[in-house]
Amino acid sequence: MSKPKVTYFDVNGGRAEPIRLAFFIGGIEFEDDRFPYADFAEVKKRTPLGQVPTLEMDGQIITQSNAITSYVGKLAGLYPNDDFQALLCEEIMCSIEDVTTRIVGTFGLDGEALKTAREKLLNDYLIPHLKWLESKLSGNDYFIESRLTVADLKVMAHLGWMQSGMLEHIPNTAIAQHTPALNTYFSKLRQHPKITEYYQNH
Amino acid sequence: MSKPKVTYFDVNGGRAEPIRLAFFIGGIEFEDDRFPYADFAEVKKRTPLGQVPTLEMDGQIITQSNAITSYVGKLAGLYPNDDFQALLCEEIMCSIEDVTTRIVGTFGLDGEALKTAREKLLNDYLIPHLKWLESKLSGNDYFIESRLTVADLKVMAHLGWMQSGMLEHIPNTAIAQHTPALNTYFSKLRQHPKITEYYQNH
Repeated sequence: MSKPKVTYFDVNGGRAEPIRLAFFIGGIEFEDDRFPYADFAEVKKRTPLGQVPTLEMDGQIITQSNAITSYVGKLAGLYPNDDFQALLCEEIMCSIEDVTTRIVGTFGLDGEALKTAREKLLNDYLIPHLKWLESKLSGNDYFIESRLTVADLKVMAHLGWMQSGMLEHIPNTAIAQHTPALNTYFSKLRQHPKITEYYQNH
Repeated sequence: MSKPKVTYFDVNGGRAEPIRLAFFIGGIEFEDDRFPYADFAEVKKRTPLGQVPTLEMDGQIITQSNAITSYVGKLAGLYPNDDFQALLCEEIMCSIEDVTTRIVGTFGLDGEALKTAREKLLNDYLIPHLKWLESKLSGNDYFIESRLTVADLKVMAHLGWMQSGMLEHIPNTAIAQHTPALNTYFSKLRQHPKITEYYQNH
């Protein structure tokens, strides 16, 4: 197997973050190919469907972040073996893609239009989704099989984004305010030894 | 295992169609719970995240169509065993969700705004996606492992929608015109004995 290459924006977050983390936690060497946002117009000319992240492996360039995350999760031992547990893992990951797409759909708006769209998004989708996630967690430290899986890595990147303050009109207190148990989970997860180790260098 | 229940609009297509087909082809009994579009406002009150399709199984209600499709595909023997092939299968399925979300994003528009949005969608996303699918097929009868998988069922439902004439400003000749090999694949796929058998009753 050739050394896999992950291509994505030069940011510690977003759709590539669970992939990078899974490679790192699984102890699998990979090329972390990062590019500045300004280069996206150029990069997308050579990626399938003009999308990132991509995984380049064995001469193929593969798109679709959840597909890649699950695959790398399998390589890294961070994916459920049981098919029903895999269903629950994929359900969480797909739900994050859903809300991510909705957030990205508000990019490009500004002023009052942005404020209105973001507040509606927060109330209609983001908060209900946080509450749904919290209900799925039901007090555990991990979403699936009481162990770290790619579902946790995907959730962590999403919660990190929501709490970053980068999303105007999405208060970075929303998680703590509406879903305190999910917030506690998030704090604990970031103290996972391998995750702490990863972020010492990123 | 209790008899699984699939809840979705009463339509032979959309996000539940690959799930229903996978159950049928796999010879697994399930409850095909269909409701008229007019009831969606009521149905969504009792589905997680207000979404359909859902799969109800062993007392749990699960959302996210690709997660469910892959799971039922595994039960039905329509999912790759090899992890890398599963990645390629998921890549195709996720790409269909991507374009589906973009099409759904144009619902609610009308008149000139709908026309402009649909024509842009067709040129910027739908046709490039069709061409990408055709390249992935590379002349085979099936997308993955030279056998029927859920990737084919997902693609079939999507192509059926695009060709239905229900999507105003998306010409139902687009597939044949831009991707003749994909169109041939589509015609052959609908003649698969189990698929033909299913549609004799639907």
